[in-house]
Amino acid sequence: MILEQIKGPEELKALPPEDLKTLAQEIRDFLIEKISHTGGHLASNLGVVELTIALHTTFNLPQDKVIWDVGHQSYTHKILTGRMADFDELRQYGGLSGFPKRKESPYDSFDTGHSSTSISAGLGIALGRDLKGLDYKVVSVIGDGALTGGMAYEALNNAARMKRNFIIVLNDNKMSISENVGGMSRYLNGLRTGSGYNDLKKNVADALDRIPVVGSVMIDKIKRTKNSIKQLFIPGMLFENMGITYLGPVDGHNIPAMCKVFREAQKLDHSVLVHVITKKGKGYRPAEKNPSQFHGVGPFDVETGKPLSKQQYPSYTDVFSRKICQLGEQYPNLVAVTAAMPDGTGLTAFGKKFPYRFFDVGIAEAHAVTSAAGMAAAGLRPVVAVYSSFLQRGFDQILHDVCIQNLPVLFAVDRAGLVGSDGETHQGIFDYSYLTCIPNMSVMAPKNLWELRAMLEFAMEYNGPLAIRYPRGEAYRGLKEFRQPIAYGKGEMLYEEKDIALLAVGSMVSTGEHVREKLKKEGYSCSLANGRFVKPVDTELIAHLAGNHSLIVTLEENVLQGGYGLAVTAYIHEHFPHIKVLNVALPDAYVEHGNVSILREGLGIDSDSIIRSMKAGGWLG
Amino acid sequence: MILEQIKGPEELKALPPEDLKTLAQEIRDFLIEKISHTGGHLASNLGVVELTIALHTTFNLPQDKVIWDVGHQSYTHKILTGRMADFDELRQYGGLSGFPKRKESPYDSFDTGHSSTSISAGLGIALGRDLKGLDYKVVSVIGDGALTGGMAYEALNNAARMKRNFIIVLNDNKMSISENVGGMSRYLNGLRTGSGYNDLKKNVADALDRIPVVGSVMIDKIKRTKNSIKQLFIPGMLFENMGITYLGPVDGHNIPAMCKVFREAQKLDHSVLVHVITKKGKGYRPAEKNPSQFHGVGPFDVETGKPLSKQQYPSYTDVFSRKICQLGEQYPNLVAVTAAMPDGTGLTAFGKKFPYRFFDVGIAEAHAVTSAAGMAAAGLRPVVAVYSSFLQRGFDQILHDVCIQNLPVLFAVDRAGLVGSDGETHQGIFDYSYLTCIPNMSVMAPKNLWELRAMLEFAMEYNGPLAIRYPRGEAYRGLKEFRQPIAYGKGEMLYEEKDIALLAVGSMVSTGEHVREKLKKEGYSCSLANGRFVKPVDTELIAHLAGNHSLIVTLEENVLQGGYGLAVTAYIHEHFPHIKVLNVALPDAYVEHGNVSILREGLGIDSDSIIRSMKAGGWLG
Repeated sequence: MILEQIKGPEELKALPPEDLKTLAQEIRDFLIEKISHTGGHLASNLGVVELTIALHTTFNLPQDKVIWDVGHQSYTHKILTGRMADFDELRQYGGLSGFPKRKESPYDSFDTGHSSTSISAGLGIALGRDLKGLDYKVVSVIGDGALTGGMAYEALNNAARMKRNFIIVLNDNKMSISENVGGMSRYLNGLRTGSGYNDLKKNVADALDRIPVVGSVMIDKIKRTKNSIKQLFIPGMLFENMGITYLGPVDGHNIPAMCKVFREAQKLDHSVLVHVITKKGKGYRPAEKNPSQFHGVGPFDVETGKPLSKQQYPSYTDVFSRKICQLGEQYPNLVAVTAAMPDGTGLTAFGKKFPYRFFDVGIAEAHAVTSAAGMAAAGLRPVVAVYSSFLQRGFDQILHDVCIQNLPVLFAVDRAGLVGSDGETHQGIFDYSYLTCIPNMSVMAPKNLWELRAMLEFAMEYNGPLAIRYPRGEAYRGLKEFRQPIAYGKGEMLYEEKDIALLAVGSMVSTGEHVREKLKKEGYSCSLANGRFVKPVDTELIAHLAGNHSLIVTLEENVLQGGYGLAVTAYIHEHFPHIKVLNVALPDAYVEHGNVSILREGLGIDSDSIIRSMKAGGWLG
Repeated sequence: MILEQIKGPEELKALPPEDLKTLAQEIRDFLIEKISHTGGHLASNLGVVELTIALHTTFNLPQDKVIWDVGHQSYTHKILTGRMADFDELRQYGGLSGFPKRKESPYDSFDTGHSSTSISAGLGIALGRDLKGLDYKVVSVIGDGALTGGMAYEALNNAARMKRNFIIVLNDNKMSISENVGGMSRYLNGLRTGSGYNDLKKNVADALDRIPVVGSVMIDKIKRTKNSIKQLFIPGMLFENMGITYLGPVDGHNIPAMCKVFREAQKLDHSVLVHVITKKGKGYRPAEKNPSQFHGVGPFDVETGKPLSKQQYPSYTDVFSRKICQLGEQYPNLVAVTAAMPDGTGLTAFGKKFPYRFFDVGIAEAHAVTSAAGMAAAGLRPVVAVYSSFLQRGFDQILHDVCIQNLPVLFAVDRAGLVGSDGETHQGIFDYSYLTCIPNMSVMAPKNLWELRAMLEFAMEYNGPLAIRYPRGEAYRGLKEFRQPIAYGKGEMLYEEKDIALLAVGSMVSTGEHVREKLKKEGYSCSLANGRFVKPVDTELIAHLAGNHSLIVTLEENVLQGGYGLAVTAYIHEHFPHIKVLNVALPDAYVEHGNVSILREGLGIDSDSIIRSMKAGGWLG
């Protein structure tokens, strides 16, 4: 095997083209085999095997810097830079990250995770290089899907001003996670396909028809048109117009072709975009056929592509998905907005059922939020379904476009709390903080699947900005007997005793249930209340708890600062200073990747850890 | 006067063109006269007088919707929609807002304030219209500066998919607030100027030379090129490529020409961009000559254009401006980044002194933050100077690109706290909340001008993400004798007595000083401490205060939720439950426009109000 002989990327340079081709096949086999056991991002990685080899062949890492946009496509890069042996622990606690990490390897030049950051980061690095008088190369590899994100365009706009070499590789696989949307997508499609190209030629012809007073010089020039060139004129026009040289398109599975273009790109003294066409899932039939399903996978059977473990119970996403379809029938003004995550957020079904009331805006959270605000202003009831960590991209838009005007936009905040193996960039542990500081915003979190349904029903009748946040994975099916109707700003008492009161929100209600069961077994008297509303805090409920408890424990799956617990504590301190309060929350730190239950233990928010620290801290008297 | 006879915009439709022209002059005179007394946004409003008249002549407001991007150019719109008499109270407490407000008039269809939101909002409204089966027109008016913001591009990308009429008016005045930057600017410049146009024609010719195998059909077509049309082919190509019809450019001071194009635009069944060329400051010589200075002005002398009141003492911005230049000499790796606010943030001087170390990225906060992260990763020490309310646009980038990697990026957060007459959209009252919830981020706030300097010096030697936030306006010059060296995470004791301890941060330290003086006069014993660090909270200082005080009053100019006070309270509740705590902070509400001291009174955070509520709440025992 060639792969096993490769100790570092510099060795690629000596290999003949046919060996590089073999190497690509070996890497592909390795990826399929490994990811079939560990799970991970498959389709995107299969798409960039040759591209990564070509980059490592033509650039000198780690002196040269490659920034991988989003970063989940960096597996081949990791394999080629000494991390092949770590793939058995891919995305596991303490193991290899599924994303580039500077602390993991000097070959990783910038941490990524969210979309559309790589051109900005790359430009910053290139400017740093220039000011320091160094001359390494900087390459930002960005997918066509990521180009729908506004900050990529902000960066392109600035890249146009670069006076030194800076290379953008557009990894064009015709989709982001699901299929791509919008004008840029249409434009790129025009570049790729013969028909699109012909259309463009026709456009040129039509358009030239319309040019006033062209003069004969130009027509003469056109008459001499004969030479063919590698780069087409029309395709790159959009980038060229901005001042960025366009090279391509080039076949992203042809290593020598790519190497040739990269060497050309290195010669330029300004920004250049290399358009590389790849196929997501390339070389593995099930992934080629269904790249969206193979975007992020659990362990699967290599022969059939079928997942090895089947989800037994519905996830919160499934519950949301079904309920929002049902509400769609009931509420004709209900519309749904997603930012390139129709599958992930569960909106695909709604989109099929109500195609005219479903909007996938691309990886464009800011636009998603503000266009929803516009829809609400026009009398619709938009629900914006976004992952917690991605909604961070719409923070200003929620504050400035939705909440100032107090518009009835519902945020279905999925993947909130710990998300597990995606790690630091994807943990949804800040939303209580960034949402509750916004005036007019209300924030809810369900304790179980029935409560999510009830909250969605409540939301349809609530006339203002509202967020419902729920975690990744299986919806909790316990506590099903507690179904008090939802009332604005009100929590619910689940078990009422005395001494210790657990006051939990969202996913932590079930943790509270377990804490209570264990404390009961040890002979403690313990109540459990479900806050339901993270904002506004139910002060009546707190006052009630203060009546016959000496300790109130708040539980939330969010960082402490800006969250639920501190708001509760402040109220208690003012009105019931004698009541002790323990805030169980996440520490002021990023949380790495790993299995969620391992993470919870490590962070001290599982029931055993909570009881342990209650005892250690003397909270149990 | 025609202006005084106009009762509503529908009356414009009956006026002959020459009257509309006269009307424009009258409005211009009115604007100059009124703003010379009240202050306000002048240059942008002078630029769109004719454009606004043309819109009101060809569209039917309020059925048709016009969304003004940023919104500070809506004065003529307000004059024509029944609010002329309110201009004496422009931007004053209780008076006319300087921005569109739905609650102010049915003619204002969407609130704006921050840049680049109008296309998203307009698209949302247009989609709402379509789903409801209505047929009014929707027009988003956006400046070329706002086009440097990524969300405008996200919206354009989605506008390309519209199947019904949607009109974008590109109000192209060749600048945002200062001069425009980047590839889009270069592109637009190409459209405006003859030379640019000729260059483009040459590009077409050159490019056609390179088209492979064009075939004779096309050449034949080109030979038949004769007709002239209003819309040029090349200029709109960038937009046309995305699928948006381009009309223009049209003279933005020629009302009949604009009306004609708007009527054409109304006929299309998809998105159309009308390119209007205007001159910022048009018709008032001083503003034409220096539009940046006349962007937002205080009262001025109409004859000379000179401000009536001169700033006596330096603002925090001035202090920052000078200090950062000095530090620039000392620290060769120090670079400065701004998002279209070189003047407003005080970075113009640095940019002149160190042109290669200064980056104005356009209205692109997200890119500003992430490119700074890239620079830091490449060994530079970037300072990102942004207004507090605009930095909200970079929230995810701070969290995801700067702080995960713990990169030494300094955020100089200007206009933090209450900003006054710009109102709701511009108040910088959330930054403590959205910054302190981010791991690895530290947040400081200076009590006076000397402390801002000391903090900037400290920042140069601090190796991690750090924000220093300071308010708009004159830097505080009191408490100058207190200059203890800055130590990480440490506050400073200013006056130490007993009973009552005031623990204030930033601008509220001077308020605390006044509260203390007044309480002293009434015979109370009162200490004053300066927190200096909003994050991390100085728990040693709190423990010290807990030693001989029974009441600790926290003071901050930020909303309560997620801010400084609650973090202090939580610590006190755990360790010193007997100590009473009063959190003076801003309420959970947006704050309207008005003079800052009036606002402070209304919000209860001036010294008299604080003492009043201390007494009323029984806090003084």
